[in-house]
Amino acid sequence: MTLKGRDLVTTQDWSHEELLAALDLAVKMKGDRYGYTNVLKDRTFFMFFYNPSVRTRQSFECAATELGGHAQFLEPKSMRLKTATTAGETIEDAARVMSRYACGLGIRILEDKVSAYGEGEELIREYAQWAEIPVVSMAHDKFHPCQGLADIMGWIEWLTPGGGFDPAAVKGKKLLVTWGHGALARSLCSIQEAMLIGSRFGMDVTVAAPEGYDLDGEIIKWTHENCKANGATLATTNDVEAGYKGAHVVYSRNWMSPRAYIDGEFQKQQEIEKALKHTDWICDAPKMALTEDAIFTHPMPIDRGHEVTDDVASGERSCIYDVAENRLHAQKAVMALTMGEVKPE
Amino acid sequence: MTLKGRDLVTTQDWSHEELLAALDLAVKMKGDRYGYTNVLKDRTFFMFFYNPSVRTRQSFECAATELGGHAQFLEPKSMRLKTATTAGETIEDAARVMSRYACGLGIRILEDKVSAYGEGEELIREYAQWAEIPVVSMAHDKFHPCQGLADIMGWIEWLTPGGGFDPAAVKGKKLLVTWGHGALARSLCSIQEAMLIGSRFGMDVTVAAPEGYDLDGEIIKWTHENCKANGATLATTNDVEAGYKGAHVVYSRNWMSPRAYIDGEFQKQQEIEKALKHTDWICDAPKMALTEDAIFTHPMPIDRGHEVTDDVASGERSCIYDVAENRLHAQKAVMALTMGEVKPE
Amino acid sequence: MTLKGRDLVTTQDWSHEELLAALDLAVKMKGDRYGYTNVLKDRTFFMFFYNPSVRTRQSFECAATELGGHAQFLEPKSMRLKTATTAGETIEDAARVMSRYACGLGIRILEDKVSAYGEGEELIREYAQWAEIPVVSMAHDKFHPCQGLADIMGWIEWLTPGGGFDPAAVKGKKLLVTWGHGALARSLCSIQEAMLIGSRFGMDVTVAAPEGYDLDGEIIKWTHENCKANGATLATTNDVEAGYKGAHVVYSRNWMSPRAYIDGEFQKQQEIEKALKHTDWICDAPKMALTEDAIFTHPMPIDRGHEVTDDVASGERSCIYDVAENRLHAQKAVMALTMGEVKPE
Repeated sequence: MTLKGRDLVTTQDWSHEELLAALDLAVKMKGDRYGYTNVLKDRTFFMFFYNPSVRTRQSFECAATELGGHAQFLEPKSMRLKTATTAGETIEDAARVMSRYACGLGIRILEDKVSAYGEGEELIREYAQWAEIPVVSMAHDKFHPCQGLADIMGWIEWLTPGGGFDPAAVKGKKLLVTWGHGALARSLCSIQEAMLIGSRFGMDVTVAAPEGYDLDGEIIKWTHENCKANGATLATTNDVEAGYKGAHVVYSRNWMSPRAYIDGEFQKQQEIEKALKHTDWICDAPKMALTEDAIFTHPMPIDRGHEVTDDVASGERSCIYDVAENRLHAQKAVMALTMGEVKPE
Repeated sequence: MTLKGRDLVTTQDWSHEELLAALDLAVKMKGDRYGYTNVLKDRTFFMFFYNPSVRTRQSFECAATELGGHAQFLEPKSMRLKTATTAGETIEDAARVMSRYACGLGIRILEDKVSAYGEGEELIREYAQWAEIPVVSMAHDKFHPCQGLADIMGWIEWLTPGGGFDPAAVKGKKLLVTWGHGALARSLCSIQEAMLIGSRFGMDVTVAAPEGYDLDGEIIKWTHENCKANGATLATTNDVEAGYKGAHVVYSRNWMSPRAYIDGEFQKQQEIEKALKHTDWICDAPKMALTEDAIFTHPMPIDRGHEVTDDVASGERSCIYDVAENRLHAQKAVMALTMGEVKPE
Repeated sequence: MTLKGRDLVTTQDWSHEELLAALDLAVKMKGDRYGYTNVLKDRTFFMFFYNPSVRTRQSFECAATELGGHAQFLEPKSMRLKTATTAGETIEDAARVMSRYACGLGIRILEDKVSAYGEGEELIREYAQWAEIPVVSMAHDKFHPCQGLADIMGWIEWLTPGGGFDPAAVKGKKLLVTWGHGALARSLCSIQEAMLIGSRFGMDVTVAAPEGYDLDGEIIKWTHENCKANGATLATTNDVEAGYKGAHVVYSRNWMSPRAYIDGEFQKQQEIEKALKHTDWICDAPKMALTEDAIFTHPMPIDRGHEVTDDVASGERSCIYDVAENRLHAQKAVMALTMGEVKPE
């Protein structure tokens, strides 16, 4: 098996064996933080931020640095790319030239930088088609594969008895993915990636949300197929509490509704107004008391007081900082395997 | 003594011995420019620029590079931080996660990015409280510790007879800190830090400014205490010339008045109009002739023709470029001592 | 011969021997991509982008990384430089301080960031006058020396029989520089640099453009002198087809007219409207059929469908991606020779 040259648009594109190889290396890298500094020595990794970011910028640039390389921070607004209304460079030309300079290309595009759900996915796939170097999603409207890897890595760490790292530890465990309210209109990408990777590792998945917050039907279908293939189950509910029963991992986060884009416009204000009304959709201690001593997970940044209460987010069963840290290790592993000369074991 | 893990919000927080250790290393680093490139090898230093900057960006990023590491340039506007009016991440969450990625965090916040004097200081102290990595001020409304270190380093270099580096050389010497006019409304931070560190090293300090340009009373009090503890004196005057008599170091620079913030708004235009009226407040050759062959110092950028005349700024007794260079060496030393494994001697 | 410390504002400032030395090293670097990573080890190169850029940012930052150093991306808008209307730092002060921090300084200034043709050149020459480190143009209103080096390198690669690299291979070959239409008002810099360096290497140069698109008369004169000195010829024509006959290299690109700046304002919209009218000025297969099997060259980004048709730009005789890649190698060579300790052979 080799991952050299492979794109990572969603974890669903990689085999279970490949995902295990990435996690295995990420765990090794976490244990030997500066032991891999020759992997991308003096190489350039391009980061394309159509949207700004907190964690993603920090963790990808840090990952490239710790592999001995350098992440260039690029904002496509200064790239004179062709659009519907302006002269500029085609994606083919941009991708082909970048392939001459860099060892890999990360792209982030979602929310207000797309005019319809799925457009970010299309753009990333077009870059991947032309680029001769690996293309990695740094979050787009549909998927967030590195977040998914960091999530499952953190859940395995927390659920493996005795503190080791046993991917089988999450098998048969229940993942509750639940909507959270707030002055937000967040992308579906992290949530959908979590459902996909959780089900790949044999977790039962429950999706809870108010009416009107359906996720992408195709991702639901894929999650269902993943569950079936791994002896797990998928359930959905509009009940704010029911899903907590028996949960081992609770993932509470806001996401936008299927009506977030109308006529090519991102309806942020309208989504926020709608999202603020469901004040009961908050992960709090009474709800967490219904679970099987579940851990609380979130990709951050958290909207405390809306998506989750402070006592849960900062509680003893919160794995948020570990998952955030795992972004770094998972991304280093992905970059090393796809862009470096590191072979999976 | 170790400085590993220590914050640097103002030099006043460090002991005299600790400041000497930092200067000692800075001088060594100046003499052996690329002899410390393993200190932060492949480590990440975050630079948070609430305000843009000239020298600070250049010198900190260069410092990280010369220590073998990488400075990430981050603008909090793209960080989705919580504010009074928008959902976002708390400083606790931001600081805790950054502590997982980086070896240190620099923050710059002043002028129009605060709504009242002292707010920048509060913010930096809050980051420092939560971060598990050293927090260094890259200039904030109250202090500018790395400028202070570069200043005293330059003054010692220029005042040590025979060209060596003897911190005792500035003891008993007179530092004139004098206000300069111009289309400016500059932060108090550099000036206040200079008064503090000058008095720590036994310099007599005179502050000269037109009426209405009082500095922070608490800093004046600390400077007074520093002077007393070191056998020196503090004087203030509204006379534009008197302070020059007997001065060994002249520091002429604009600063904003205590009325710069009204109802949470930075009164830049009003401050500029006020500051332009005091046309006699310029450091020029006739005034310099009153001194004890004083050196001219300024943290740059200089507003030539207002704060100081060209002939003084570019004259033989101007130490401005050396002080600017010292920013690099002082910051390398601070980073090496607080974030690296370098032990003070 | 040494190039250590030399500026590069235009290739015309360097001797033929010096240009050959740069190309020789660039070719070696292309063949041994990561064999020069100690040249600028832990050194800082400042990139000053008055204007944003695609290729230039990517290739210069990548070049610094591959030489073991770091390119700082600086936007002068955040540099508080003195302008006609605001207080700020002089170029003398900025350049002198930067010389203390960095091993070199790249500057890009053209199009809407100048108020008249030639102003960018003046600014770069002023930086070069004060800086004690090499100043390299990263494209300005008059010249684009690194593009010129990448161009001639690519043409030599394509025209040397048997695939080697023989600079004599372009001698006596015909370079057609032809104007292209489109919703564009591009700088003259790449075109003018190409004419200069082509004629330095003994190429016959033909410039074709509609009436009203004259290039800088002084550059035309220099090109003429270069031609004379190297046994070549210079021709100009307003005919859209005539120049293609006998051409070995076709360079089709838009450029602005001499009326692009009026009263200090860049007339972008007016230039675009004018440039869109000349729809016959496009490089296409029928025109290319008139040539001596010419290669098609362009500095990119290309406006496909206006400057050139897709079939020519993506055709078998298109050297655009190789030239784009050569930007990296040529810039590494220039930086190594002027800023590092690498001696020309």
